[in-house]
Amino acid sequence: MATPTRVPQEERTRAMRLRLLEATVELLVEKGYGGTSTTLVSQRAGVSRGAQLHHFPTKNDLVLAAVVHLAEVRGAEVAQAAGALRGGQRRTREVLQVLADHFTGPVFAAALELWVAARTDETLREAVGPLEGHIGREVHRLTVEALGIDESRPGARELVQGTLDMVRGLGLANTLTDDSARRARILDAWARVLDDHLEAP
Amino acid sequence: MATPTRVPQEERTRAMRLRLLEATVELLVEKGYGGTSTTLVSQRAGVSRGAQLHHFPTKNDLVLAAVVHLAEVRGAEVAQAAGALRGGQRRTREVLQVLADHFTGPVFAAALELWVAARTDETLREAVGPLEGHIGREVHRLTVEALGIDESRPGARELVQGTLDMVRGLGLANTLTDDSARRARILDAWARVLDDHLEAP
Repeated sequence: MATPTRVPQEERTRAMRLRLLEATVELLVEKGYGGTSTTLVSQRAGVSRGAQLHHFPTKNDLVLAAVVHLAEVRGAEVAQAAGALRGGQRRTREVLQVLADHFTGPVFAAALELWVAARTDETLREAVGPLEGHIGREVHRLTVEALGIDESRPGARELVQGTLDMVRGLGLANTLTDDSARRARILDAWARVLDDHLEAP
Repeated sequence: MATPTRVPQEERTRAMRLRLLEATVELLVEKGYGGTSTTLVSQRAGVSRGAQLHHFPTKNDLVLAAVVHLAEVRGAEVAQAAGALRGGQRRTREVLQVLADHFTGPVFAAALELWVAARTDETLREAVGPLEGHIGREVHRLTVEALGIDESRPGARELVQGTLDMVRGLGLANTLTDDSARRARILDAWARVLDDHLEAP
């Protein structure tokens, strides 16, 4: 009769961990890295301090787990949006919109907080660096697939990379003011350039 | 006989203010926004706590003055680099290099710290937002001039804006790892695209 009580306990533990990680991401978005404390996280998650400290003894443990969680969320977000665009003719402007939406959304804001905190925190950088590399490659792969690009064409790979850096820059530009009107015009022009350069011969 | 003693005093005051602001920028680069304290700034600048508190009573006062100082430094840095490129035929790749050097340098790192801190700090955002807008327009103007671009051509303005967002994204990508090899290939490819699209008819 051990199993029926053990399984719910494992589920509760998993659900509690997830609530703690989601609360961490929410607080990163709202209050930034500096304003995210373990006390606020346990309050937001509705988890006792004791239980939180059991799972994540320090802020660093919590933030590192949140980095991994966030990487999964970001990967899934982009994959889902890209999947919805697959098939049919190339829809460059729509693909750019999906990317821009991702890089101006709350999940990017949380990632940006971790990214910038990691710049001056070696422990965090060792965790964030490889994950960002992994996410970057995954987003690149999904973009190539969604755009139907032949990366063997000279310069095609670099244009996709430059496009992803451009939308990342748009994400940064959008953090201080609503930049959506300017962004839409840039994406219109960018889509025309990509179509000119990436079109199948 | 008041003047001879008054002028040096004013100069000393100005020099002291400048040392405090430069120390603030250095600490933002090295330790990030969260790691920059008024105590560290006064130590770094070699200015007594009393004198520092006289000029900048709070961290916020110091950081806001550093924002203005940094804006001047960034404007001057880009203008100087752009000025060195003026005249002769279009040198798109070199202009892109100047921009990328700026957005991967320490002055950008300090600006990024303020930018991200401002995202969740309203007082700071009210100061950083307009200044970033001003710097953005100035960098745009210098880029148009250095590239010899006719902005009345459809899409030309948006391509310059997108290019600046791209180098900003490249700057962000470079904060965690040395991204220079990838960056060089992206800039090579992008220079060819810009020349194709922006060439005079």
